[in-house]
Amino acid sequence: MSASGSAYADLLGLVAFGELLAFERMAGDARLAPDLRRRAALNEMAAAEIANYRRLADRLTALGVPPEDAMAPYVEPLQAYHDSTEPRDWAEVVTKAYVGDAITDDFVREIADALEEPDRALVLDVLHDSRYADFAGAEIRVAVADDPRVAGRLSMWARRLVGEALSQAGRVAAERAALTALIARDGRVDVPGLFGRLTTAHTARMTAAGLNN
Amino acid sequence: MSASGSAYADLLGLVAFGELLAFERMAGDARLAPDLRRRAALNEMAAAEIANYRRLADRLTALGVPPEDAMAPYVEPLQAYHDSTEPRDWAEVVTKAYVGDAITDDFVREIADALEEPDRALVLDVLHDSRYADFAGAEIRVAVADDPRVAGRLSMWARRLVGEALSQAGRVAAERAALTALIARDGRVDVPGLFGRLTTAHTARMTAAGLNN
Repeated sequence: MSASGSAYADLLGLVAFGELLAFERMAGDARLAPDLRRRAALNEMAAAEIANYRRLADRLTALGVPPEDAMAPYVEPLQAYHDSTEPRDWAEVVTKAYVGDAITDDFVREIADALEEPDRALVLDVLHDSRYADFAGAEIRVAVADDPRVAGRLSMWARRLVGEALSQAGRVAAERAALTALIARDGRVDVPGLFGRLTTAHTARMTAAGLNN
Repeated sequence: MSASGSAYADLLGLVAFGELLAFERMAGDARLAPDLRRRAALNEMAAAEIANYRRLADRLTALGVPPEDAMAPYVEPLQAYHDSTEPRDWAEVVTKAYVGDAITDDFVREIADALEEPDRALVLDVLHDSRYADFAGAEIRVAVADDPRVAGRLSMWARRLVGEALSQAGRVAAERAALTALIARDGRVDVPGLFGRLTTAHTARMTAAGLNN
C-alpha cells in the first residue's frame, strides 16, 4: 500500500478497535445493571459493536492489511481511556455508553469525509443504532428523576469522560501525523477545530439528557 | 400458565440466562488473549451467544413470561459457577470455553427432548457453532505443544470446571423439582444418569484435545 493507503487502513483500524473495545467494556459493565432486563439490554448494545467490528476487519483484510496490524497503534490509548473511566455504578455505566457512543459517532462522521466509497458508506453504516442512545438517555433521566442530586455527579462524570477521551485522541493525533493529515480539512490539520465540533455536539446532548456542562 | 407450562418456561429461562452469562464472561476473558486476532475471535464467540439469548427471550415473551422472571432462579447458581472458575490465563480461557460450551450443548440436547415444537427446534438451534469449538480446541493443542507440562494443568482445570458445573447443576435440580421432572426420562427423574451421560461425552472431548481425565 502507498503511504496514504496505510493512513487509510489506520483510520479503519482505529474505528475497528474502538468497536472491539467498546464491546468488551460494555459487556463487562453489564454486571452493574440493577435488573436482568437492563443487564440484557446493555449486553445487546455491546453485541451490536462486534458485528460492526467484523465488517471493518473483513474490509481491512480485503485491502490486504491484517486487522490486528491496523488496530495495534490504538490498543494503548484506547485501553488507557477505558481504564481511567471505570464506571462505579449503573448510572455511570449508561452515561458512559451515552456519551461515548455519541462522541464516537461524531468522530466517525468526521472520518467518513476522508474516505472513498465503499469505505465511506461502510463507516457511516457502523454508527450506533439510535434505539441504544434512546435507552441510555432514558436510563439517565430515570436516575436523575429518582434523585436530583445525581445530575451533578453524572455531569461531572460526563466531563471527565470527554476530558479523558480528548486527551487520548490528542495523543493519537500527535503520534500519527499521516492519519491526522487524512482527516484534515482544506489541507489544514485542524485538530482544535475537530475537538471544538465534537464538544459542541456533546454539550447539546448533555442538555437533552438533563445534565449540565 | 399451567404448572408444567411454568416448568417449561423455567427450562427456556435456564438456557437463556446461560447464554447471557456465557456472553458476559467470554467478553470479560478476552483481555487475556495473547494478541488482537485471538482477542477478536473470543469476542466474536461471545457475541454469538447474545443473538441466541435474544431468540429465547423473544420466545419467553411470546409465551407470556417476562424473560427476567424465567431467568431469575438461575442468577445465583450460574454466577457462582463463573465466580469459582475465573480463568487466570489464555489457556484456561479457551479450555473453559471448550469445556463449558460443549457441556452446555449436551445439556441443551437433553432439554430439547422435553420440549415441543417450535421450542425444540429453537433450543437445538442455539447449539454452538462448531467453528468456535474448533478454534478453542486448536488453541488448547497449541498451548500443550508449546509446553507439554501445560497438559497436566489444563486437565486439572477441566476437572474443576466440570466439578463446579455439576455441583451448581445439582443445586438447581434439587431446588426446582418441576424442572427436573420435565427432563426426566420414562417418568423417572434420573439426574445421576444425566450427569453420567454428560461426563462420558466430556471425557471423550478431553482426549480429543490432548488432555487427560
